[in-house]
Amino acid sequence: MRISTRSAVDPFIVMDVMQAAAAAEAAGRHIIHMEVGQPGTGAPSGASEALSKAMADAPLGYTVALGLPALRARIAQMYGEWYDVDLDPSRVVVTSGSSGGFILSFTALFDTGDRVGIGAPGYPSYRQILKALALDPVDLPTAAQNRYQPVPSDFAGMDLAGLLVASPANPTGTMLDKSAMGALIGACAETDTSFISDEIYHGIEYEKKAVTALEITDDAYVINSFSKYFSMTGWRVGWMVVPPDHVRVVERIAQNMFICAPHASQVAALAAMDCDAELQTNMDVYRTNRQLMLEGLPQAGFTEIAPPDGAFYVYADVSALTDDSRSFAAEILEKAGVAVTPGLDFDPLRGHKTLRFSYARSTADIVEGLARLKAFMAAR
Amino acid sequence: MRISTRSAVDPFIVMDVMQAAAAAEAAGRHIIHMEVGQPGTGAPSGASEALSKAMADAPLGYTVALGLPALRARIAQMYGEWYDVDLDPSRVVVTSGSSGGFILSFTALFDTGDRVGIGAPGYPSYRQILKALALDPVDLPTAAQNRYQPVPSDFAGMDLAGLLVASPANPTGTMLDKSAMGALIGACAETDTSFISDEIYHGIEYEKKAVTALEITDDAYVINSFSKYFSMTGWRVGWMVVPPDHVRVVERIAQNMFICAPHASQVAALAAMDCDAELQTNMDVYRTNRQLMLEGLPQAGFTEIAPPDGAFYVYADVSALTDDSRSFAAEILEKAGVAVTPGLDFDPLRGHKTLRFSYARSTADIVEGLARLKAFMAAR
Repeated sequence: MRISTRSAVDPFIVMDVMQAAAAAEAAGRHIIHMEVGQPGTGAPSGASEALSKAMADAPLGYTVALGLPALRARIAQMYGEWYDVDLDPSRVVVTSGSSGGFILSFTALFDTGDRVGIGAPGYPSYRQILKALALDPVDLPTAAQNRYQPVPSDFAGMDLAGLLVASPANPTGTMLDKSAMGALIGACAETDTSFISDEIYHGIEYEKKAVTALEITDDAYVINSFSKYFSMTGWRVGWMVVPPDHVRVVERIAQNMFICAPHASQVAALAAMDCDAELQTNMDVYRTNRQLMLEGLPQAGFTEIAPPDGAFYVYADVSALTDDSRSFAAEILEKAGVAVTPGLDFDPLRGHKTLRFSYARSTADIVEGLARLKAFMAAR
Repeated sequence: MRISTRSAVDPFIVMDVMQAAAAAEAAGRHIIHMEVGQPGTGAPSGASEALSKAMADAPLGYTVALGLPALRARIAQMYGEWYDVDLDPSRVVVTSGSSGGFILSFTALFDTGDRVGIGAPGYPSYRQILKALALDPVDLPTAAQNRYQPVPSDFAGMDLAGLLVASPANPTGTMLDKSAMGALIGACAETDTSFISDEIYHGIEYEKKAVTALEITDDAYVINSFSKYFSMTGWRVGWMVVPPDHVRVVERIAQNMFICAPHASQVAALAAMDCDAELQTNMDVYRTNRQLMLEGLPQAGFTEIAPPDGAFYVYADVSALTDDSRSFAAEILEKAGVAVTPGLDFDPLRGHKTLRFSYARSTADIVEGLARLKAFMAAR
């Protein structure tokens, strides 16, 4: 049976790290996991309780394609609370994680061969989902002085059908401030380039609140998820906000491609939105961990780091140490017992000189991991 | 912002029926729902209990992309129990419902513009998902004498890249026996046409067990779900079985497009597979309802029906009564208070002469619905 061309998807290099880490653990070694991209915490307890109750009350059949009306209303309310943005709940589309949001938005906006700009470094699945949908991802190599975010001159004259940005970003944790995002939105509007804002790490911010594209324009797709701040990765529930005249189109695609987001997850997500005290406890951990990383990584010798505004990653330029981040990550795992992600998944062109460190797990793990990294680098 | 060409998805006509039914109910009328495509029952109680326990035990983070190993193993075991097929669990891919299976299979197998044959009448989303992925759905009008299933002569010389069949089928409930499915698989093998078997209604059979494509060949994609027999529609969890040399490709696509199927739903699904007593109680209801329909519909005057081998639908040729199934369905709703689905969603060309009646709800509803249909037809 033939395999399609569009399915020629690159493997995740981090998977090799994870497998090597699992093998080391199976052999009895203790590994600190700084390669993971998800919280170590589960859904807030109020979410689990609400779901247990809902399961006892009624069958969890299909919801309507756009999602439970109460959840859409609660999400719209959050835009008022978080950003002082007045959002019509009818523009909110509940999705099967941000993954579902990418599939829906790319399908609604782009046709075969359309060129869509993505910042490099960036979340690796952007590129692969675009390719799987027969679209053409265009890497925009970003500059350290722009805090690894694209600027209008990075795509001037490129005739892009779309631009996808993330703030806070994975793997760098850097954010676009209002003026930087406004410049991108303005440049896109001039060339009829659809603007997609991945805001999955909103809520996990340290110095100031992240800016949503909706503060600047209604003419954007905003993608978000319950996976990160709400600590519900495995539940596969997220949302999109789309321009008013796109709701009907997205609804029809969603009816056919997804039917609905998981009903149980929607129930849990709605309850999670009222669990702020518990979620702020998770934030306290990230805040402590971030501080430890910003002090500890340079002490260990990883001095070229972008100070993360949000998310739970530090991206380090290790070009002074190696030109092969893949072997370097393997060496760190082997000698220090710390799993880290080589930059190649995020930036195929320049990622051989970078590493991503995650601080999503417990503070005890971060302390131990940093100690191991210091000892490893001192002995190198 | 531009809307893509590929997103020009047809609306579901049944949605008009459902909205009219909801409006009638809001106005105080009592409506019998024979338009629904899902069980009235919820997940088996063992599934809910297992999930409540799992939520208390550990965070439900991402699973690996192919799904929980225990669930993949249990699904493989079921192929031994149900079909006497020895299946390697490594070929089982847990998906976000059969919807996820369609997206993954179409992406793995087909490139832009590839022509994929689907039987008409058939599940409307086949056509729409194919279009959304820039593929070319080719309707194969099936014949009543072939029990509304495609036969090799229906697509001879058409140079199809793929053929997608469903047995038991929606909307007809008819099945392909081993020889009919073997003939399709043989014809596809000769022309290098990828064969996809939608087996979502397996387990809901009346006269004999449905045949899985895996009894005939390993060179097929088999798509299934926990939505129907396992009564878990809203949970969005299903599975695919793929040829051994396709597992790695599908895994990479799934990692990027879905990350994983919902973890909570996977936990519930695993437990549901050991709830056969409760599920057989649901089957007793369908069995009783089917018998009532097969007797009651002809008595009411719907004489041209395909006897359903499985699923919970009866498809009726109403060409002697109308040439506008959409108005006819509206009339039945208005005058009889019974919601039914016009055939146009399933067969754009010929569905103006057909209706689908669902018997997925309670027996009391079926009795009442049939009585209303008889009175309506007698007065017409």
